[in-house]
Amino acid sequence: MSRRTVFFLSDQTGVTAETMGHSLLTQFEGLEFRTVTLPFVSSVDKAEDAVRRINRAADEEGLRPIIFSTLVQDDVRNIVLGSRALFLDFFAAFVGPLEDELATRSTHRAGRAHGMADLATYTTRMNATNFALTHDDGNGTDYARADVILLGVSRSGKTPTGLYMALQYGIYTANYPLTEDDLEAGTLPLRVNSYRQKLYALTIKAERLQQIRQERRPDSRYASRQQVQYEIRAAEALFARYAIPSLDTTECSIEELASRILNNTGIERRLRP
Amino acid sequence: MSRRTVFFLSDQTGVTAETMGHSLLTQFEGLEFRTVTLPFVSSVDKAEDAVRRINRAADEEGLRPIIFSTLVQDDVRNIVLGSRALFLDFFAAFVGPLEDELATRSTHRAGRAHGMADLATYTTRMNATNFALTHDDGNGTDYARADVILLGVSRSGKTPTGLYMALQYGIYTANYPLTEDDLEAGTLPLRVNSYRQKLYALTIKAERLQQIRQERRPDSRYASRQQVQYEIRAAEALFARYAIPSLDTTECSIEELASRILNNTGIERRLRP
Repeated sequence: MSRRTVFFLSDQTGVTAETMGHSLLTQFEGLEFRTVTLPFVSSVDKAEDAVRRINRAADEEGLRPIIFSTLVQDDVRNIVLGSRALFLDFFAAFVGPLEDELATRSTHRAGRAHGMADLATYTTRMNATNFALTHDDGNGTDYARADVILLGVSRSGKTPTGLYMALQYGIYTANYPLTEDDLEAGTLPLRVNSYRQKLYALTIKAERLQQIRQERRPDSRYASRQQVQYEIRAAEALFARYAIPSLDTTECSIEELASRILNNTGIERRLRP
Repeated sequence: MSRRTVFFLSDQTGVTAETMGHSLLTQFEGLEFRTVTLPFVSSVDKAEDAVRRINRAADEEGLRPIIFSTLVQDDVRNIVLGSRALFLDFFAAFVGPLEDELATRSTHRAGRAHGMADLATYTTRMNATNFALTHDDGNGTDYARADVILLGVSRSGKTPTGLYMALQYGIYTANYPLTEDDLEAGTLPLRVNSYRQKLYALTIKAERLQQIRQERRPDSRYASRQQVQYEIRAAEALFARYAIPSLDTTECSIEELASRILNNTGIERRLRP
């Protein structure tokens, strides 16, 4: 089956075009797409290059490509409008109604949607990231400053979730791995016990954890079915005993975990759109 | 001046709604908005709660709120459509044309735009993140596996940029801080010299670097004007001497830096939308 090509076109990074395109395409189950991101299409020359690539894809595949565009400059957009593709124009769809509502004309200039980061934003992001780095995997001691301490067995998703929360929301995350000693004791490790209200647990299905650990240390005790089942059971018993809120990471993306933790705890994010 | 309230409404994380809304609002310079994200609006009850919050904002501020919605469930969307706000409906705008083009009816089910991460995606992301963590700040030795090695003086933005590239694109990033010894020698440090084709330099304006360092170690030699100017000049001379491509991070967000590095180097990302 020929896969249709989808272009994400932007005069900036392409992150918005990718995000919006991806979220629409997931509404069409069973179809597969080839995706191409063309960022920084900010001049007539680059727009003409883009049109050549799009038309070539149309010729080669015999299927009209789909363009998700966040282009805002009229001259650039007009050129791409001439390509042989379905042009889904994010700005055209929404800028008009917004201009009416706000009684303001928009700039139509290549945006800085992802911020020319001002110093305050940069500092917040940097400090949160540094905190997450120094408080990864049970390291670091400054739990008093943590917004949240993620708790879970090895490979349950704590590190990437914490880093994402730091980078995206400016949240100070620490994470603490439950060791076998902790699990055997059946009580909260001393180091986190005084910060109970900051704890958020991540759990995971045994089968998935086994796959993940198997990738890391094939055929080890660490990756064995028995070990994985024991750890998860003991960890979940601990979470229940102390009424620590928890999320199952098995079918969740990092974005979803981060967002759910924020939503469930009511932690104030330090960075907002 | 009363600021208008903007709601980002989603039946999932709200990341797409925030991204699209933010990128549109940046087109209206000089206006300020109060932003509220309402994620996981996935039931009639939650939709009714959302409507109450939106209408309350309308009453209190005397200005019609703006809703950026990525809601896909018809029952939920219909309820929110009844609120006293400008409803900008991402799905309504694009799903119709896509259904026609693809000759397929979309699911209209609360999506998983941010992926129920399959194991391969999860593993890629995790491995790249671990690589970035173990190869931060000159640590780690496995430069042979790095896709890119970011080079720059202390606080030039290497760490968050590298982590973002790992999380977002699955890129294996290392970063190496140029020390005073390196700068005085005026030659590439031995450790990175054999990986020249992987080097990408980050630089920054002296004034900004001074502000950043001042936040970190107030009134230190490290944060002094003279020191900062010396380091930047010496580093830029080194980049020029070895023809290492470089970006100025002063006015760039992390997203933009990551995207430009990918675009300029042609490195293949391991994660795509």
